[in-house]
Amino acid sequence: MDILGMIAENLQAVKEKRPLVHHITNYVTVNDCANIALAIGGSPVMADDREEVEEMVSFASALVLNIGTLNARTVESMIAAGKKAKELGIPVILDPVGVGATKLRTEAARRIIEEVGPAVIRGNMSEMKFLAGMNVAIKGVDSVADEQDGQAIAENLAKQLNCVIAITGKRDIVTDGQKTCFIDNGHEILSKVTGTGCMTTSLIGVYCGAGKDWYIGTIAGILSMGIAGELAQAGLAPTDGIGMFKVRLFDSIYNLSTEKILSKGRVIGG
Amino acid sequence: MDILGMIAENLQAVKEKRPLVHHITNYVTVNDCANIALAIGGSPVMADDREEVEEMVSFASALVLNIGTLNARTVESMIAAGKKAKELGIPVILDPVGVGATKLRTEAARRIIEEVGPAVIRGNMSEMKFLAGMNVAIKGVDSVADEQDGQAIAENLAKQLNCVIAITGKRDIVTDGQKTCFIDNGHEILSKVTGTGCMTTSLIGVYCGAGKDWYIGTIAGILSMGIAGELAQAGLAPTDGIGMFKVRLFDSIYNLSTEKILSKGRVIGG
Amino acid sequence: MDILGMIAENLQAVKEKRPLVHHITNYVTVNDCANIALAIGGSPVMADDREEVEEMVSFASALVLNIGTLNARTVESMIAAGKKAKELGIPVILDPVGVGATKLRTEAARRIIEEVGPAVIRGNMSEMKFLAGMNVAIKGVDSVADEQDGQAIAENLAKQLNCVIAITGKRDIVTDGQKTCFIDNGHEILSKVTGTGCMTTSLIGVYCGAGKDWYIGTIAGILSMGIAGELAQAGLAPTDGIGMFKVRLFDSIYNLSTEKILSKGRVIGG
Repeated sequence: MDILGMIAENLQAVKEKRPLVHHITNYVTVNDCANIALAIGGSPVMADDREEVEEMVSFASALVLNIGTLNARTVESMIAAGKKAKELGIPVILDPVGVGATKLRTEAARRIIEEVGPAVIRGNMSEMKFLAGMNVAIKGVDSVADEQDGQAIAENLAKQLNCVIAITGKRDIVTDGQKTCFIDNGHEILSKVTGTGCMTTSLIGVYCGAGKDWYIGTIAGILSMGIAGELAQAGLAPTDGIGMFKVRLFDSIYNLSTEKILSKGRVIGG
Repeated sequence: MDILGMIAENLQAVKEKRPLVHHITNYVTVNDCANIALAIGGSPVMADDREEVEEMVSFASALVLNIGTLNARTVESMIAAGKKAKELGIPVILDPVGVGATKLRTEAARRIIEEVGPAVIRGNMSEMKFLAGMNVAIKGVDSVADEQDGQAIAENLAKQLNCVIAITGKRDIVTDGQKTCFIDNGHEILSKVTGTGCMTTSLIGVYCGAGKDWYIGTIAGILSMGIAGELAQAGLAPTDGIGMFKVRLFDSIYNLSTEKILSKGRVIGG
Repeated sequence: MDILGMIAENLQAVKEKRPLVHHITNYVTVNDCANIALAIGGSPVMADDREEVEEMVSFASALVLNIGTLNARTVESMIAAGKKAKELGIPVILDPVGVGATKLRTEAARRIIEEVGPAVIRGNMSEMKFLAGMNVAIKGVDSVADEQDGQAIAENLAKQLNCVIAITGKRDIVTDGQKTCFIDNGHEILSKVTGTGCMTTSLIGVYCGAGKDWYIGTIAGILSMGIAGELAQAGLAPTDGIGMFKVRLFDSIYNLSTEKILSKGRVIGG
């Protein structure tokens, strides 16, 4: 089966299984993350207190850790939930929002990577470049931080961390260190709505919670957001803006079908 | 006056009084709760720090406690605000989100019930079944946890806790232990949007804040969300999804009238 | 250049500079604040932990402090970020949500004013009247709290605190203590959506982050929200409500142009 066929199958599994996805995430985009997870067919649950996260993640099929508005309290919750998920074989998806911008975020990302070991890390180019450089310092290997090539950065990081790495941007890159693919779906207006990155990470969580292949689940989440962004944009009137675009983005994820994935998906390599 | 007439009167009181409803609630759906309270005619205020909740609730006509993303800090704020509200005769509406899923939530719900004594508790069937079972353990009465019958669970719980109990689902049940009614409004798509339960609890808060009968206020909140869900769904185009549905849900609550309640309300018993 | 011309120039600067605006704000309206900042052309970042706010604000062009759902932890973060911003010459915009309602909010506002010294304070009449009265007690000057006249309150406060004061309402007042103007844009329905005040403060942050004149930036933020509110309302169908109004509000800010500011802006004085 080709890669779009596997993604379509993963979407089918989402609709049947309705995977519970535990999020420990920022309070800026949390409502959108919950709604996008519901729209695609998942079942989101948010809980961030140290006292309850291990219990909550035990019911889940995937765990999303997003460091967008973290604090000392939630960092510990993320580590505890992540370790429990790992122990139970539940995939952990890390969104290292703003890593490198502050010591707190950098240290949180470093700890989650070292102490938990995520199945997937999704970020933008600057975040992933920072992780690549940080990882150098941690692991003592030769620097990859100077590389301008996203593919090389992603593949090296995937090998070193033994996980799926996704760098989202105009052309998205997904790799597990062995296989690499590029996704050409999406639209620039997605960057004008806050949380489209966070929502993409939530979609990855839903797909990984319903499937067995984190590489496919990661591509599926990114591809779904890309196609939905294209469809949402295509339906706008000239006087519409990001208000209506956001409405249509949720509509498009809600109405996403295996047919649309097969006909509109633009994945190269894989 | 029949029950729909009393609900219509309660809506009229909301529009005239614009009751201030203090919320201590989760950060996932808080914006939607604020907007739905405003849309129906209430005045929401959110404040969760232990240092200010007693002052804030003193200005309010109702207090909504929602344990969706609670933590050690906010549990104490809920108890303190709840006790102050009780002392001042202000109705407390409890939404025990996820009770039974984790010890933290169960313990928080137990403490709010025992130490505060809510006027209304609204949850889904599994939450209310859990409360019924928990209450057994607390109160030492015969088990009702095995009962499959929502009505019996609700009525027993209402009598034991001396409050209004609402179980929302396909057919909603509301009882004060003496009178019981069923509400048949609503649409399945409401379950595809995060926070429609939380928003229903906020609407109950607004109605109870403007009226004097918590039983009627509870029915009114649930009925309003049900009618609004039907109207929102009826106005959708085939390509619409939960994005546009949510927009129309707020529109429908904003435009809800006593006429619509009287013509569209489907309340049985009461 | 007249005042509308200066505002149009400030909007042009926003589009070119895309200023980063650091927010420490409430969790009720934070998503809307992020989206409105993006929609006008800014770049929002939210971070509230004491450990990271000084680093984060160092990258920013403006800092928005909103005390809407503050707590003991975030108050300290606001003070620390505010002091750092001041040190670096970054304008601090204070939204004293609910000041006077509780001691916690009053004390937080007092500390931010005394220890940080905001460039701009925006609130509604009752908040600003409270600040005026509080300031009296702090500074020991004759009472202005009895004055019914918003202009006098605003001008006195601006002189005493050496900052721009904005009182928003039906007719908005902006003053730096020397110059004063009134803005007649806006629509009553803006008060039916939660967070339009917070969003206005965020827009002020974006404008001040791109321009050099806080007085003009403050007028620009308020005027933009007012014009967008008018345009959003004008586009509504009779069956629409606050759901669609909010969508159109974001669309209107996204599509705001210098032409619309020049043709629709109603600023008196200046």
